[in-house]
Amino acid sequence: MLPTKVSGSCDRPYPTTGVIYISVNDSGEFGLIARIAARISAAEPVLLGPGDDAAVVAAPDGRVVATTDLLVDGRHFRRDWSTAYDVGRKAAAQNLADIAAMGAVPTALLVGLAAPPDLALNWADGLADGLRDEAALVGAGVAGGDVVASDRVTIAVTALGDLAGRSPVTRSGARAGDVVVLAGRVGWAAAGLALLEAGRSDHPMADAHRRPDVDYAAARALAAAGATSMIDVSDGLLADLGHVAAASGVRIEVASAALPVSPEVRAAAEELGVDPLGWVAGGGDDHAFAATLPAEAVSAYPVIGRVTDVPAGESAGAVITDRDWLASPGHEHFR
Amino acid sequence: MLPTKVSGSCDRPYPTTGVIYISVNDSGEFGLIARIAARISAAEPVLLGPGDDAAVVAAPDGRVVATTDLLVDGRHFRRDWSTAYDVGRKAAAQNLADIAAMGAVPTALLVGLAAPPDLALNWADGLADGLRDEAALVGAGVAGGDVVASDRVTIAVTALGDLAGRSPVTRSGARAGDVVVLAGRVGWAAAGLALLEAGRSDHPMADAHRRPDVDYAAARALAAAGATSMIDVSDGLLADLGHVAAASGVRIEVASAALPVSPEVRAAAEELGVDPLGWVAGGGDDHAFAATLPAEAVSAYPVIGRVTDVPAGESAGAVITDRDWLASPGHEHFR
Repeated sequence: MLPTKVSGSCDRPYPTTGVIYISVNDSGEFGLIARIAARISAAEPVLLGPGDDAAVVAAPDGRVVATTDLLVDGRHFRRDWSTAYDVGRKAAAQNLADIAAMGAVPTALLVGLAAPPDLALNWADGLADGLRDEAALVGAGVAGGDVVASDRVTIAVTALGDLAGRSPVTRSGARAGDVVVLAGRVGWAAAGLALLEAGRSDHPMADAHRRPDVDYAAARALAAAGATSMIDVSDGLLADLGHVAAASGVRIEVASAALPVSPEVRAAAEELGVDPLGWVAGGGDDHAFAATLPAEAVSAYPVIGRVTDVPAGESAGAVITDRDWLASPGHEHFR
Repeated sequence: MLPTKVSGSCDRPYPTTGVIYISVNDSGEFGLIARIAARISAAEPVLLGPGDDAAVVAAPDGRVVATTDLLVDGRHFRRDWSTAYDVGRKAAAQNLADIAAMGAVPTALLVGLAAPPDLALNWADGLADGLRDEAALVGAGVAGGDVVASDRVTIAVTALGDLAGRSPVTRSGARAGDVVVLAGRVGWAAAGLALLEAGRSDHPMADAHRRPDVDYAAARALAAAGATSMIDVSDGLLADLGHVAAASGVRIEVASAALPVSPEVRAAAEELGVDPLGWVAGGGDDHAFAATLPAEAVSAYPVIGRVTDVPAGESAGAVITDRDWLASPGHEHFR
C-alpha cells in the first residue's frame, strides 16, 4: 500500500497528474526499481534485463563499445525548464551518440539515479520513459540500473554498443588530405539554452536545449563511407574538432563560409541580438557528428573543412579560416 | 601551470601530502580526466581505453555482463572515515562482485565522478588508484569515465564482464532440494560500520567497512561447480537469499547453527554489547557470495541452508530456522 500525499510541485508533471503525487520516499528503493523496470520495453540485444546482480547484453562482434556520462540537476538540466521525459531523452541521447560516433550500433543502457526521497515518482516514471524511448530509436534497451538517495538529483547513464565487425572509428585517424564533414544540427541547443536563460521557455527553439534530435543513421553512414575519424559534437564544433586534431596530430581548417547557420538559429540570434556563429562554432549538446573522410570518399553530408599537416612551429588544432581553398582545384567537391 | 593553494582539508590525505593540495577546480575537467587516465594501467580486455567518445572492451563470449552502482558521499562512504583509495576499492569491488555473482569474469570498469570544484586533486588520484587496484585483482581495467561538477561527491561505477561460454548464474534458478552455500565473510562490514559509528575508527575491524575483501575466485568456483543460483550479498544475507527465493519461487531455510560468526565479529559484538547474529544475517557490504547447488554437487564452501518448495499458504522467501534437518538422512553433507 503506497500512501499518497498532496504537494505543490515545481516539476513540470509527467504525465500531467495535477498536484497529487507519490514520492520516491513512499515507494522505497526496491519499489522504485520495480516501478522503473516495469516501464522498460524488451529490446532484442538485452538478453537478461533488470532484476539480477547484473544484466546480459548481446555483443555479437566479440567486442563491446562502452561510454558513461553523469548529468547533475542544476548543471546539465533544470527541472523547471525540462520535463523528466526530456531529461531521460537527453541523458540517453548523449550516451547513444557517443556509441554511434565510434561507428557502433547501440545495444543497451544502464542507468543510475540518485534522488532525494521527496522526488515525485512521476518524475522517475518520466525519466524512465524518456530513456526507453530514445534507446528504442536505435533498437537499444534499458538493461539495468541502480537507485540511491541523495540530496542532488544525479543521473548516471552508461551506453553499450556493437561494432558489427567494423573497426572502431576513433578520434586519432584523421590524415592530411582528408575532408571534414558534418552531419546533424549545430547551434540549436545553444540557441535554446540562451532563449531559456532569457526567460523564453515557450519559444519553439527552447526544445532544442531540452532534448537533442540526433541523426544516429548519419554516424552509421559516415562509418560505412570510410570515416577516418569521427566525434560526437558535445563540447562545441571547434572544440571537438580540436580534440580530433590533437588526437590525430593534424591541423583541421574549417571554412567559415561552410558553417551551417540554419534559418531557425539565425532567427533566434536576431531575436536575442547576438552573432549566431558563436552558437554554431561553440555550442554543444546537439550531438551532431563531425567526421573526416578521404577526399575521394562519397558521403551525403556537407564538407565544412579539410585536414592538413601541422605547420612548422604550430600545434595540432582546429581553426576557422576564411581562406578560399574551398575553390581550389583539389577540392572541387567542397562546392 | 597549475596554481596551488593551502588549505586545511578534512580529507584523509592520499598519498600523505600534508595540507598543500591542488583542487579539481585548478585542474579543470579535461585536466582531471587526463590526470586520472594517466594513473590507469593497461588491462588485457581493454582494447581502447580512455580518451575517445567511447571505450572498446573485449567480449569474446559474444555477450557482455553489465552492472552499475552509484555511491554518494555521506551515504555510502564518509570522507572522514575512508580514504579516497578505500572508496575506490569499495566502489570497484561492489560492482566487480555483481559481475562475479553472474558467473562471469570482470573485464572493465567505467567511472563517473561528480565532484565539487574544491575537491582535492589527490582525492581524485586516490580514488582512481583504488579503482585500478581492485580491478587489477581480477584482470580488469578502467576503460573510461566522465568528470562533472556537483556540490555532492557522487561516484558512478559500471562494471563489464565476460561469461566465457557459460550460462549466466541468475537469482531465479534455485530448486527444491538444492543446498545453500556461502563463500566469503559476512558481518564484518556491519561490525566495522558499528565501530566507526561508535567512534572506534582505529579499530582493526573498521577497515572491513572501508573496503571489502571479496573472494572473487569463490564465485568462479561456485559457477563451475554448477551453482543453480548465485547472489552477491550486499543487502544482507537473509535479505539477499530472500531475493533469490522470490526470483526462484522457492523457500530458503538457513540453519541458525550454520551461520558463520567469526571470532573477529564475535569479539567486536562483545565490545559493543550487541548480538553478532544481527550483523551476520543482516549486514551487507562484505560481498560474500551465496549460491544454491544441487545436493550432489561438490564445493569447498560451507553449507548454510537448503531450498524447499513454498509451503501451502505461504510466500516464497528466506527464513532462519533452528530445525535439525541439518542432521536428516538426505543431507549428510551438511555436517
